[in-house]
Amino acid sequence: MTHTLVLLRHGESEWNAKNLFTGWVDVDLTEKGRGEAVAGGQQLVDAGILPDVVHTSLQRRAITTAHLALDAADRHWIPVRRSWRLNERHYGALQGKDKKQTLEQYGEEQFMTWRRSFDVPPPPLDDSDDYSQAGDPRYADLGDELPRTECLKDVIARMLPHWESGVVPDLQAGHTVLVAAHGNSLRAIVKHLDGISDDDIAGLNIPTGMPLVYELDDEMRPTVTGGRYLDPEAAAEAAAAVANQGR
Amino acid sequence: MTHTLVLLRHGESEWNAKNLFTGWVDVDLTEKGRGEAVAGGQQLVDAGILPDVVHTSLQRRAITTAHLALDAADRHWIPVRRSWRLNERHYGALQGKDKKQTLEQYGEEQFMTWRRSFDVPPPPLDDSDDYSQAGDPRYADLGDELPRTECLKDVIARMLPHWESGVVPDLQAGHTVLVAAHGNSLRAIVKHLDGISDDDIAGLNIPTGMPLVYELDDEMRPTVTGGRYLDPEAAAEAAAAVANQGR
Repeated sequence: MTHTLVLLRHGESEWNAKNLFTGWVDVDLTEKGRGEAVAGGQQLVDAGILPDVVHTSLQRRAITTAHLALDAADRHWIPVRRSWRLNERHYGALQGKDKKQTLEQYGEEQFMTWRRSFDVPPPPLDDSDDYSQAGDPRYADLGDELPRTECLKDVIARMLPHWESGVVPDLQAGHTVLVAAHGNSLRAIVKHLDGISDDDIAGLNIPTGMPLVYELDDEMRPTVTGGRYLDPEAAAEAAAAVANQGR
Repeated sequence: MTHTLVLLRHGESEWNAKNLFTGWVDVDLTEKGRGEAVAGGQQLVDAGILPDVVHTSLQRRAITTAHLALDAADRHWIPVRRSWRLNERHYGALQGKDKKQTLEQYGEEQFMTWRRSFDVPPPPLDDSDDYSQAGDPRYADLGDELPRTECLKDVIARMLPHWESGVVPDLQAGHTVLVAAHGNSLRAIVKHLDGISDDDIAGLNIPTGMPLVYELDDEMRPTVTGGRYLDPEAAAEAAAAVANQGR
């Protein structure tokens, strides 16, 4: 018997649409993003994959995506678990900055290092910055764990405790688990599951609003590396678009 | 120190608008109902009352009301607990029936007995009925506890275990608790809190989308009987309208 895990990246957000680095800034979905969430839920229905429990970040765009997708799938009533450990990567001083401007200002190499380097975070965001989360009540309990910037390596390190103590127990209990989260927290999970190298993860892009389904064995190893998108052609097109952001 | 409890009845549903008995049928909110939920969340912001945890039923109209109200209050990220014990009263064979037709067909006395009697439930709903929840996966674990009809006394009996083991521990932990639920599950809570008699509870109506705030002492007794609506005038008007349903 296998365990079913569904990964769902939130639909287009207001700052995706404006091409700004978002990170921990709690922006809302666009109307297009809401539509993507509903379509993602409809894909689950069509595939007969019905989540028994949902895990989300503490960020509006993932929470609303989960709500809309589950409502569309008639699974709005399942238990909800939330964790900051599923949040998007903290983009440090880039939060609120235009991606295209950042590319022009700092050049291709620095831009791609900040976007895709495994272990080089952007400069930290000052606590007094308008886009800082230092005073946000939802993170009041984090203390020294509150990030001011993160690279993907940092995201993996803070995501894994929730994977191990939150998601895996639900899978082992026989539940079909939906994780509604973000580009980088989901890349962190995929890297962990598929054993992708620190170098190769840079080339992996996860499209918005497209359920990515993994069947896992009892040791939580994927039966098919990379899982499967319920709509593979649309997912490949959308992933290519993500890779070209800022161009 | 007191404990803060906020009760919120879902906004107008599609069947409220059509004047049908709804009960456990899982209808959606109307656009008006969505607006009520958002306005309820805005009232919480204006009053500076910020829920730390939310309890909902397993029904879409309460779940979406909670989502919209908390999103409007910037508290979308708080932990969520759901229980069938907060569901609306099961209306038995009346589910799906028109309230005005039922009143005309059965007369004022029978109608008011079914609507407001403390301990006389309507006839049970057959499991084969279109509006039965006998095959609904969200209630699969209930076994013999799955109701086929309920009076308010039944609602109190099945609600109380969640009050004691779910809501009270959150209040005692110092959390401000939002309960987003239904006319009758909220009347059950209010009857319990205020010690309202079996006879007098018939006269209590809770309006949709209006936060009702209780401050409770350490023994979970209200410091002010009946609590307080954040917008008392609008709440009084709306409660009068509920009382006149079916006329």
